[in-house]
Amino acid sequence: MNRIKCIISYDGTLFSGYQVQPNQRTIQTDIETVLTKMHKGNPIRIHASGRTDTGVHAVGQVIHFDSEFNLLPEAWKRALNAQLPKDIYIKSVEIVDDKFHSRFDVVRKEYRYFIWNDKDENVFSRNQHYFFPFELDIVKMQEALNSLLGTHDFSSFCAANTDIKEKVRTIYKGTINKSEQGIVIALEGNGFLYNMVRIIVGTLIEVGQGKREVISVKNALLACDRAKAGKTSPPNGLFLWKVDYNN
Amino acid sequence: MNRIKCIISYDGTLFSGYQVQPNQRTIQTDIETVLTKMHKGNPIRIHASGRTDTGVHAVGQVIHFDSEFNLLPEAWKRALNAQLPKDIYIKSVEIVDDKFHSRFDVVRKEYRYFIWNDKDENVFSRNQHYFFPFELDIVKMQEALNSLLGTHDFSSFCAANTDIKEKVRTIYKGTINKSEQGIVIALEGNGFLYNMVRIIVGTLIEVGQGKREVISVKNALLACDRAKAGKTSPPNGLFLWKVDYNN
Repeated sequence: MNRIKCIISYDGTLFSGYQVQPNQRTIQTDIETVLTKMHKGNPIRIHASGRTDTGVHAVGQVIHFDSEFNLLPEAWKRALNAQLPKDIYIKSVEIVDDKFHSRFDVVRKEYRYFIWNDKDENVFSRNQHYFFPFELDIVKMQEALNSLLGTHDFSSFCAANTDIKEKVRTIYKGTINKSEQGIVIALEGNGFLYNMVRIIVGTLIEVGQGKREVISVKNALLACDRAKAGKTSPPNGLFLWKVDYNN
Repeated sequence: MNRIKCIISYDGTLFSGYQVQPNQRTIQTDIETVLTKMHKGNPIRIHASGRTDTGVHAVGQVIHFDSEFNLLPEAWKRALNAQLPKDIYIKSVEIVDDKFHSRFDVVRKEYRYFIWNDKDENVFSRNQHYFFPFELDIVKMQEALNSLLGTHDFSSFCAANTDIKEKVRTIYKGTINKSEQGIVIALEGNGFLYNMVRIIVGTLIEVGQGKREVISVKNALLACDRAKAGKTSPPNGLFLWKVDYNN
């Protein structure tokens, strides 16, 4: 048996998220269907670094699976890309130690959120950004974001409907930059709770609009109460950008 | 009656081109449907600078129509964008002299063609570029393109199935640039024949690959024979970029 690790990108627009769901098109289903076909009907199960929701994209999602085939990485890449639909692309393949696990071994994840902050919509990237035509004070947004860096209980920034009890996470880095591609909010941490990035972004946007004070973000964090944070921003601006492992 | 001129952009991916066709989704149909509804069922006909084919995009297409409504440009823009589908966007509106005509008054048009020239596909812009993973010599491509500048009979670079007899056109400018967005071929001229940009691009790609000599492009032009030029490149890389009028 060989354990195969892949870095994949996908445009989440036409998927009901990453995870298999009955009668829905999902990223996991599409990849498993191709792999199972390659293995003459023997079902192949893939494992990802984590799920992504409906409409959320990935530039550097990581998956792994086991196969008895002895293909070179480039041959795996070619074979998979030839059969996968156009909105999923295998960027690289590596044969890894069979103790590697794409979810359990994650040490760091980066998400990026794209806001198209212009008076006019850009039709070409409309599924890959949140169109927000009003003025945003990104200096204040960065100040508010800084108050979330470090290790905290992020209960206030987690969707209410989650099973996870342990809500302490560490955000190593959080930056906000404005360029021709719009405003990009990049967050790096050891893990993120359900909807955490989107709730942080939604809260920062309220700060940027002047609807909320900078200090209110720190206060929301300390309250450990979802109701104290802002709205969940739309999924289509969100990208799982990079997943890091030891070595 | 007021004559209204609009600069519009659209993502051509999900349209069967610009022009009305029975039982097809077209840009013209979608805009006329919205305008006709606004005018309580009085049919409004729009006129564009020219058609675009299935899958071809526009950043700066120009249309005009007549209306008895006395709206300010910003009100027109808001009303139309509120009702149009997400893949069409009205960028600007102007009330113009009623002698203005979006097609007859064109003095210059610019098209741009995007080639994603990387070993890996970019899933996010897959409908807005031609993915070409092989090496291209853009110096040779530019040299070949230079031989097409000026006023010529472009019969060799026109789809065979066209009614237009007069095939002399002037290309004022043609540039090829490589950036993070890929290779961009920009052409400006007084008008372009059916498929002309896509046939020029397809021919230049053959030059860039070394499948065809630079000089063969000039020879193809002089032959006035479609068979002497290269393949028609796919529509999804093509953008109607800008349309200029006098004043």
